[in-house]
Formats: sequence, structure tokens, C-alpha cells
Amino acid sequence: MRQALLIVDMINPFDFAGGAALLRAARPAARRIAALQRRFRDNRGLVVYVNDNFVDWKGGFADIVACCGRDGMPGADIVALLAPGPEDRFVLKPRHSGFLDSPLELLLRQLRVRRLVVCGIAADSCILVTAHDAHMRGFEVQVPRDCVAAQTAARRDRALALMRDAFDVDIRTSRAIRFQ
Amino acid sequence: MRQALLIVDMINPFDFAGGAALLRAARPAARRIAALQRRFRDNRGLVVYVNDNFVDWKGGFADIVACCGRDGMPGADIVALLAPGPEDRFVLKPRHSGFLDSPLELLLRQLRVRRLVVCGIAADSCILVTAHDAHMRGFEVQVPRDCVAAQTAARRDRALALMRDAFDVDIRTSRAIRFQ
Amino acid sequence: MRQALLIVDMINPFDFAGGAALLRAARPAARRIAALQRRFRDNRGLVVYVNDNFVDWKGGFADIVACCGRDGMPGADIVALLAPGPEDRFVLKPRHSGFLDSPLELLLRQLRVRRLVVCGIAADSCILVTAHDAHMRGFEVQVPRDCVAAQTAARRDRALALMRDAFDVDIRTSRAIRFQ
Amino acid sequence: MRQALLIVDMINPFDFAGGAALLRAARPAARRIAALQRRFRDNRGLVVYVNDNFVDWKGGFADIVACCGRDGMPGADIVALLAPGPEDRFVLKPRHSGFLDSPLELLLRQLRVRRLVVCGIAADSCILVTAHDAHMRGFEVQVPRDCVAAQTAARRDRALALMRDAFDVDIRTSRAIRFQ
Repeated sequence: MRQALLIVDMINPFDFAGGAALLRAARPAARRIAALQRRFRDNRGLVVYVNDNFVDWKGGFADIVACCGRDGMPGADIVALLAPGPEDRFVLKPRHSGFLDSPLELLLRQLRVRRLVVCGIAADSCILVTAHDAHMRGFEVQVPRDCVAAQTAARRDRALALMRDAFDVDIRTSRAIRFQ
Repeated sequence: MRQALLIVDMINPFDFAGGAALLRAARPAARRIAALQRRFRDNRGLVVYVNDNFVDWKGGFADIVACCGRDGMPGADIVALLAPGPEDRFVLKPRHSGFLDSPLELLLRQLRVRRLVVCGIAADSCILVTAHDAHMRGFEVQVPRDCVAAQTAARRDRALALMRDAFDVDIRTSRAIRFQ
Repeated sequence: MRQALLIVDMINPFDFAGGAALLRAARPAARRIAALQRRFRDNRGLVVYVNDNFVDWKGGFADIVACCGRDGMPGADIVALLAPGPEDRFVLKPRHSGFLDSPLELLLRQLRVRRLVVCGIAADSCILVTAHDAHMRGFEVQVPRDCVAAQTAARRDRALALMRDAFDVDIRTSRAIRFQ
Repeated sequence: MRQALLIVDMINPFDFAGGAALLRAARPAARRIAALQRRFRDNRGLVVYVNDNFVDWKGGFADIVACCGRDGMPGADIVALLAPGPEDRFVLKPRHSGFLDSPLELLLRQLRVRRLVVCGIAADSCILVTAHDAHMRGFEVQVPRDCVAAQTAARRDRALALMRDAFDVDIRTSRAIRFQ
């Protein structure tokens, strides 16, 4: 079964209320996501960046990466860790969920993806609604708990428990992910 | 600002795993919803039943109400409490969220509704995703905590806290709802 | 390959500008559709009524059939010809296209339908946009030219030619439809 | 009433069957669109490029413009005429209609756009379905007949007449467009 790694909102200016706390929590998650991304690339898995559009539809993902990775930007170290490669796909999302008003579902169906591994920030916001939207659209969903972050660990754990109990989401760590 | 009361999945056969526990928790919520529904009707508010379609698109909401309200059905007392009236609207939803693959958003926009009061079951499943979808589509959202239920009180409270913290949902009790 | 017959807007009050001309053109099409519907039922094909919702989400398809089939209603003879059976499905559409803000696509995918035979009225309006939406969503589409009608034959033929030339729609008559 | 100019698929490799005929017809339309685009910019109107994504979600609009505008590409002269400016928006569409699986509707609503002027290619394909989708979503729609092209003039005129008769689309030439 073909699976895709969705990297949600990790290319980020962290310029909102609570951004500093989220950035601190996002750094260890970013290292785990980078390791997982290498495993996907090594195993011909699909990597899709699903990212907020900070550029008001006047620019593209390349502009967002350049802007957030600039010297002095708070999340520049994460951009360096998670720089997109030539085979990676990306989808700009205008709302919290990667599936709303975006081509994500169509892209995944055309590539015959059936299982999604959803990583990134924030666990109780964009990750949660993207995972739920994926579940409602019939995808198998994993949200490896070491690859997501929220403003507090309590908010992260609450969201993970909810996804597991109410939507059958697999929340084991990224070590449990297998490639056939 | 025009508001609508969404009554989610209260017309229900309760024939699934965990259905008995959910039914026990749903009964007190049903009484609060019935009182709130009277207030909406008295104040020319809009009431919309947003309900799962158990009839495989071969029947309509009237068939679902008849089936779930039949003598001996576990949730028949709730159907009696929450019987739809001639001015109420209804939308059959094929997935957890009332907004997915349904005319709900269009119906609400045509009626110039801006604020939604989301009630029903289950707090950590259909209520949660419907509330999130409403928030992402720009509606103001209230989920009165005395008008929702889940299989356990802990699951209900976890979902309510998450909606409040991550999506600015107003979770005060139904007594806080005002009509202008 | 599983196919479905979509019967679009034939349950109709014909109470709009141009309704009388459309009704005259719809009658011969209705007889062809009725014959085709029998073939679908005999061959275990799927029949889906895709119909405008004249009841403002306060009623269901049964109410629409009852209302349009009442004695003295202009299209009552068509309702009699095309009365829905117990195995037929129906989807109420709020806009011209059967796919917009409706569960139609999900219903068809769950039933593993790949080919659609789109019939009904009006050829240059609801039929056209429903056929185009089906094509864009990856379905194979047939619009048998003897099973659709428009306010004038010229408008019908213009729409059929456009669908054939620009969207690869098969517009041969209903005799060309095969069941495996 | 705020209006937007949608420029559909004019940034194009013209590498498909019928591409040469479409390119010949697109050139005079491109000059009219360029003039209209200047008027929109001068009048603080909104310009949105709505373009096919030839880059399989591995690149963005900038890559598409660079690729199609390269020396020797058949439509490079059109790219030069219609080069996007810093204030223009763009939306990549994965299907024929600009509204399907894209953020276009949300973008237009956030910018409070009510009227759309749809230009580009092909008149009987992407223009037609984009105009119909806009009409069904409640926008006022103009398709200035001197600013669209199809593989033949007959196919263009057939599509224009259909939009006018069945969907109330204003098909007068671009000279009829007014700015308040």
C-alpha cells in the first residue's frame, strides 16, 4: 500500500501569539521528521509539504521557503533541516486542514496513495483537522507522536489521545512505520 | 447576527459498538437540546437537523425519524423529545462532518447564518469535526457543553477543551446563548 | 465496469420561464428514459435520481415526487412514467450540477461506479454541467441524445456537440448502451 | 462591486493535440487580454492567473512561466505579452475548472470579489466550466468574446452562445467592461 509523508506547516515564520513556545516544541519534532523523511526518500515513498500560504497567493512555496529560511528568522534552523528536495511535492493550503480548498486529495488519489503519515505542527490544530479530514476521506492515517508538536505537551497529548480514541489514528512513534 | 442550531446525529439507532454508553450520556443532553430548540423556535432562530444517513440514499430524513422512533428502538425516547417541526430544516450527511459532501454550507449561506450552535453526539467525533469545519469556513461556533455527549465524560471534556483552546469555540452552557 | 443511470430534474414542477417549452421536449425523452431505466433495473445497474430540491430543505425527495405528481401538475405524466422504485437511490442537488454540494460523488465511489449515463433536463444546463463535473472527476460519461431535452432542439444539439467535441462525451442514442 | 480578471491557461506549452490551432487563435485574444489587464491594473482591479499545473506539484507558477516563456517555446510571445506583475495573484488548478480542488473561491471571497471577467483558453473547455462554476457559486460572470479562443471559431462561438443562453453570461466584447 502506497504511503505518503505529509509535512505540515514546518516552514513557518513563527510570528503569531504562542509562536515561541511552539517553535521550542517543534525543534525536536523537526529532527525526527528529517530522519523519517530520509527513510521515505530511501524507500521511494512520497513526501508532500502541506504548508500555510503566507504570501497571499502572490508567491509560491519557493518564496515561503526562502522567506522562512532567511538568516535571523526564528525557524530558519528547521527550514535547513527540512529543505525540500527535487522529488518532493508541495501543496499550499489556505485553511487549517490540508484538504480544504486545495488539490491535496486529488494529488494523493492520482498517485494511488492510501496511507498518510501526518507530521508537523500544531498537533491540536492543523495536524488534528488534516488527520480527521484524511480519515473521513478513507485514507489510513498515522500521526507519529514524536513527529508532532503543540504549544504545550499537554495540548499535544490531548490531541493525540483524541485522534486515537475517536478516529482510529495510529499514534505510535515513527519507529513503527514500515515500508513494504 | 443570525444564528442556527445544528442538532447532530440525535436521531440515531445506537446500534454500534459503544452505542449503549453513548445513549445513556445522550439522554440528559437531549433534554437540554429540546429546551434550547424551543428557545430557537420562539426567537425565530433556525433549527437544522444534521444527521447520518442510515438508509443508503434510498430514503430520506422522514424515514430515519420513523425508523429510530419506532417502539422498542433504544433511542425512541430521544426522537420523541426532539421531533422535527414543519419549519425545521434537515441535511443528511454521508460522513462525520456535517459540511462534507453535503449542502449544509450553502444552505446556511443562503439563509445568511453567521453563528452556529452545534449540539448532539458524539462530542469527540461528529461534533468536533463539524465544529472545526464550521470554524474553518468562517462561522462563529458555540458548542454548549451541556448539550453534547460522548461515550465517557472524559472524552467529552477532552474534546470540549481542545475546541476551546485550539479553535476559539465558545463552550459555555446553553444558558449563555442569547437572541437579539 | 459498473455504470449508473442518473435521471436529472425530471421530477419537476415546470413552473419557470420556458417551462412549457421544456415540458413538451421532455415528454418524448421521458419515454426513452423509462425504457432505459427498465434495462438498468433488469441488468442490476444502479439508478440514481439527481433532482433539484424545491422544498427548501424542509422536505425530502418523497415530498417532491408527491408534489410534482399531483393531479393537475404539468409534469404529472412524467412522474408517473418515471416513478422511483425501492432500489433506486436519490440525491437532492442545491445547484445546477449534481456534484456540487451534494453526496453524489461519494455515493458513486462507494458503490464502485465508473461510468455514468446522464439523462434528463435541461441538456444545455443541468445535464451539461453534471456531465462536465463527472468528466473532470474521472468518470466515463454518456449522454444519450434521445434521453435529454432542452427548450429548443437547437439548444439541445449545441450542448450535445459541445460535450462530444470538448469533453469526449459519448452522445450516441440509448440503443448504444451495453451491459456486461 | 469589486471585480476580478481571471486569465485562464494562457501560460501554456501548447504541446497537446490541436495545440497549434489553439495557439493561432489565442494570439489575437492575448493582445486583447493584455489591454484589458492594463485597464484592471490602472483601476485597482484584481488580476488572477488561473493556470494548469504542468509541473506535477513539484514546482510553482514561477516555474511554469519560466518554462513556457523560454526561447523557442511556441507560446513564448504570449508569455511576454501577459507576464504577471508583483500585485497579480495566481492559482494553480489541477482540473479544467479553476474552482475544482483549488483555493480560487476562497481567495475571491476573502477579497470580496463579486464579478468575474473570465478570459483565455479554451472557450469550450476550461473557460466554459470555469464560467459555469462561477455562475453556480453566485458570481456575476462576463466572458468577453474577443478575449477567448478555441481550436476553431465555430467551437468558440458555440460555447459563447451556450453560456449566454443557458447561464446568463455577458459575452459582449471587452470594450463593454466598466470600472466604478
